[in-house]
Amino acid sequence: MNNPEPSRGKLREGEAAVAHDVAPHAAIYFIGRIATPWKTREECPRQGDLAGPLCRVEIDAPWREALAGMERHSHLQLLYWLHLSRRDLVLQNPRNEGTRGTFALRSPLRPNPIGSSIVALERVEGGTLYVRGLDCIDGTPLIDVKPELCPKA
Amino acid sequence: MNNPEPSRGKLREGEAAVAHDVAPHAAIYFIGRIATPWKTREECPRQGDLAGPLCRVEIDAPWREALAGMERHSHLQLLYWLHLSRRDLVLQNPRNEGTRGTFALRSPLRPNPIGSSIVALERVEGGTLYVRGLDCIDGTPLIDVKPELCPKA
Repeated sequence: MNNPEPSRGKLREGEAAVAHDVAPHAAIYFIGRIATPWKTREECPRQGDLAGPLCRVEIDAPWREALAGMERHSHLQLLYWLHLSRRDLVLQNPRNEGTRGTFALRSPLRPNPIGSSIVALERVEGGTLYVRGLDCIDGTPLIDVKPELCPKA
Repeated sequence: MNNPEPSRGKLREGEAAVAHDVAPHAAIYFIGRIATPWKTREECPRQGDLAGPLCRVEIDAPWREALAGMERHSHLQLLYWLHLSRRDLVLQNPRNEGTRGTFALRSPLRPNPIGSSIVALERVEGGTLYVRGLDCIDGTPLIDVKPELCPKA
């Protein structure tokens, strides 16, 4: 793997981490990158907004052919790899508002740090999708694009 | 990795595959298993149904603490690993209905074969979630559970 797990920092009150040194079960290939206006985690919105800023989803060359027929969809689901996240937390205390289990939160800190957003597709240009509705940091690795068949808009 | 990629079969007319022998970029840890009534891919429904059969999501022991607070959510998003899927198709011709790009389909055959479903949570018992809305084969590996904040129901 050329993306080692980020180092593990201090826990807040009420938080808990598990030992996490097992062998991986499956491999992820990054298929592109997401360009957003947010350069730090602090700047990122807490949730995407379908009327938010235009973001660019750049598909790597080998996968561009897989965009055929994309323009018929108004909404997409994007999956991306939250590459800055620690992966060992089971209990979290975000903003010190009270302890919750990781699976009861949409926090980026998760055993498999995969983000999922529904976005509105504005246009496709070559290997680039222009979308609104993201909340992730600039440079986030892309792992999947799916049509969203029942848009929430 | 102890789950090698499934072997690559014959292509249908109009389908295309890419060479796919790059090093992986990130690692997935399976965090549990999903028990459903469907024993083969042919039996699986094409899409989940929130009024469909009750399925069991079994969380592995190290991650059970991460379920704290789960019962306050009526709907969840599950991510799971479609372990039987080939990963190299860019163009597909499902049921010979016409060629489409992989990213314009919700087919299980994708570069990163991750399934995503919104499910209705019936109850939590220890490390087991009882849910409706899945469409995957019995024994599918689980990779994430998130609360669904805006249920589609």
